[in-house]
Amino acid sequence: MAHHCRPLVVTVPTEELRAALGSTPGTEVLVWDLSGEPPGQDPDLVVVPYMADPAVLTALRGLRPLLVQSQSIGYEGVTDVLPSGHTFSNAAGVHEASTAELAIGMMIASQRRLPALVHAQAEHRWAHAGSLSLADSRVIVIGQGGVGQAVVRRLRPFEVDVIRVASTRRHDPDGVISAVAELPALLPAADIVALAVPLNASTISLVDREFLAMMKPDALVVNVARGKVVATEDLVESVRAGRVRAALDVVDPEPLPPEHALWCLEGVLLTPHVGGHSAAMLPRVVALLRRQIHALSAGEPPLNVVIPATA
Amino acid sequence: MAHHCRPLVVTVPTEELRAALGSTPGTEVLVWDLSGEPPGQDPDLVVVPYMADPAVLTALRGLRPLLVQSQSIGYEGVTDVLPSGHTFSNAAGVHEASTAELAIGMMIASQRRLPALVHAQAEHRWAHAGSLSLADSRVIVIGQGGVGQAVVRRLRPFEVDVIRVASTRRHDPDGVISAVAELPALLPAADIVALAVPLNASTISLVDREFLAMMKPDALVVNVARGKVVATEDLVESVRAGRVRAALDVVDPEPLPPEHALWCLEGVLLTPHVGGHSAAMLPRVVALLRRQIHALSAGEPPLNVVIPATA
Repeated sequence: MAHHCRPLVVTVPTEELRAALGSTPGTEVLVWDLSGEPPGQDPDLVVVPYMADPAVLTALRGLRPLLVQSQSIGYEGVTDVLPSGHTFSNAAGVHEASTAELAIGMMIASQRRLPALVHAQAEHRWAHAGSLSLADSRVIVIGQGGVGQAVVRRLRPFEVDVIRVASTRRHDPDGVISAVAELPALLPAADIVALAVPLNASTISLVDREFLAMMKPDALVVNVARGKVVATEDLVESVRAGRVRAALDVVDPEPLPPEHALWCLEGVLLTPHVGGHSAAMLPRVVALLRRQIHALSAGEPPLNVVIPATA
Repeated sequence: MAHHCRPLVVTVPTEELRAALGSTPGTEVLVWDLSGEPPGQDPDLVVVPYMADPAVLTALRGLRPLLVQSQSIGYEGVTDVLPSGHTFSNAAGVHEASTAELAIGMMIASQRRLPALVHAQAEHRWAHAGSLSLADSRVIVIGQGGVGQAVVRRLRPFEVDVIRVASTRRHDPDGVISAVAELPALLPAADIVALAVPLNASTISLVDREFLAMMKPDALVVNVARGKVVATEDLVESVRAGRVRAALDVVDPEPLPPEHALWCLEGVLLTPHVGGHSAAMLPRVVALLRRQIHALSAGEPPLNVVIPATA
């Protein structure tokens, strides 16, 4: 993908990102959001619009093999639509800090009744009352990729008992990571269960009726992964029955339609998939693009490749 | 205060606390909330109701010298009303975890627009938008007592730049702690300023018009200390002018009257002095009382004495 006799051509989807990236010698940066015609020059690196439908990738059909840089970590559905020949990198490293801090914020907000206090504020009501706490809780974090690890790191000083869970049981210097298969033994004692898994065949509807029934009464499900990791109807039923509470940055479907039951269930805090969408994103996207530009210019393998080029 | 030939007499203000304390050999635990007559037997240890007006301490007049155990950390106004002869201990160790987690939760909630998203949820509105972040922020924590230290410990993994400030400049193994007198040089570069100081002559109205004018535009003031550390009218003016934002668990006056301007200012998150009021409190109060009972029974000096007995 390196073409040393001409500048490296990079497309970014927004003028904001072009301005933030600035100029790099030997690199031409064009704005293209994958709608409309590709730019006249064959790009070497195409940055996909943030949170775009994977279907936009069909715009790359017929282009010379290039590196496709997503601005998300998850890439479910991309393999089905990515034209062959292109290499696809995800945005590992970009969203972990932002998503993990939202997860911790939603845990504290839910335990400390912040939604009720926000409504009390709007009514000018001094609603002093006790609440649950994050401190002394047992928190299961399912998924030990970048986001899961970032959640665990932030949780450690909160005087909590953190239990790490991943697809397979293993050990690392911080101790044991339990397997998803061990959840039936772990769930009944957990106060909070945080989801930070990729969406795939083994995590789809991981949190279903059976899972929810094993949770401790009044425990909290926190989802900053993907909506489909939770079987929405099962969760609605369980929250309605007063069995569990939920803090969800991602839901199924998205956007959640106005008539959906989740919106107004007591004990549910909803945010509109903003885990990665904060001021922490742009500098990390820029840093990743600079590293990719450097790799391509130097003829080195790109970073974060999750779908290698196929013939 | 130890009377080995009779049981140690302890009064606690609620039945809940008596049940949680359980029974200790050689100790009699009575329920007394300092209203009405003192119990028939002279108490050795009196636990004050949580968040009671210090004036309740006049009920101890005429009792044999005893240990007064508060359930709060701050004890402003106690010296003026505590009958002489009694020893007064604060609740250091009880509220730090709970208050610090609320402070972090309010920081994240404010940076990530959780109040606006709570209102959007009530309107069934998918309000996807970017926001500020806690990550990459510079956070000044003023006050390096128990709560300030607990806030700093929790902030460390959030990819922030933490600046510690206390009354006097000093060094410890984690680096420098700057003096309050250095704030004019520090405030203009801080995104978040958290207050965790005791209320006293040098901290009253610390955050006044001059302080607020030095803050970075759109920066956030977080107060989990005491309401009077902030000059409320100056803060209202500064928030109204769009200069700063605020997240306040404590205000002046408390409870905030329904007609007060703070309730509905854009950019202000209010919680009703619930920093210490969570499930984390009871086990820590019980642990402190057990240590005090042990000290008194063994004739050892009590813990957490902040006002020694006067003649």
